[in-house]
Amino acid sequence: MAEATRRPFEEFPTGTVLPMATRVVTREEIISFAQEYDPQPMHLDAAAAEKTMLGGLSASGWHVCSIMMRMMCDSFLNSSTSQGSPGVDTVRWQQPVRPGDELTGETRVLDARRSQSRPTIGILKMRTTLANQRQEPVLVSEYTVMMLTRS
Amino acid sequence: MAEATRRPFEEFPTGTVLPMATRVVTREEIISFAQEYDPQPMHLDAAAAEKTMLGGLSASGWHVCSIMMRMMCDSFLNSSTSQGSPGVDTVRWQQPVRPGDELTGETRVLDARRSQSRPTIGILKMRTTLANQRQEPVLVSEYTVMMLTRS
Repeated sequence: MAEATRRPFEEFPTGTVLPMATRVVTREEIISFAQEYDPQPMHLDAAAAEKTMLGGLSASGWHVCSIMMRMMCDSFLNSSTSQGSPGVDTVRWQQPVRPGDELTGETRVLDARRSQSRPTIGILKMRTTLANQRQEPVLVSEYTVMMLTRS
Repeated sequence: MAEATRRPFEEFPTGTVLPMATRVVTREEIISFAQEYDPQPMHLDAAAAEKTMLGGLSASGWHVCSIMMRMMCDSFLNSSTSQGSPGVDTVRWQQPVRPGDELTGETRVLDARRSQSRPTIGILKMRTTLANQRQEPVLVSEYTVMMLTRS
């Protein structure tokens, strides 16, 4: 998307609520991500996973964070002037994400302020909550996003 | 690894420092991860990335977290009685991770305590720091890991 048509910092004031696209998590994706980045039994193999605290095959927590990121990109970030993030304040994995789960979510702007040192940058504190098809929360995360201000 | 030979909670007392395996991050991996989970210009395309705050192609922050997870698995987690994590207290992305960067790291046990409600579970607060081949820190994260105690 051309820079001029992207939504700048000013269009995300404190209190803005952004609905997010739905995403179904497949067994193949869970196992494929785990093989590359988190090869633990609870993410790789159903029989081995049943003997763990998670009680069955479930997605790596970092996989769920990555899925959240894709949902953010598709829903509001890639049509904004986002410049990335310096970090994350908290992630809570509240329920396992199982094969076939359909995730939905929303993102709330907790705080929006202009950078003191760089007035072309706005700093957004955001909270994203994801839930499964049974309306059980599976992830909540609070983090910072930097966006360009209106030029 | 058979359950009986895994290192339990008691082998990770407060103050333990765990060195981590090295990992080289390729251009192909950066772009492949971004296409699936974080399709923003700074992670997808060198020319577009040069116009962003990151100043060039760099790995998605969640990709760096996922690489950290794999380094943890290979270095100490998969030979332990880890049962997963309820969440992350902080992630700081301190420098961009570029194609060809060689990441090293260490993990420190900040606190180790037995669960009050479930004595078969130990709760570890850990901090992992990753640096690149120029000894610049690229990521620091603090998080919780649950491990089975010695039975």
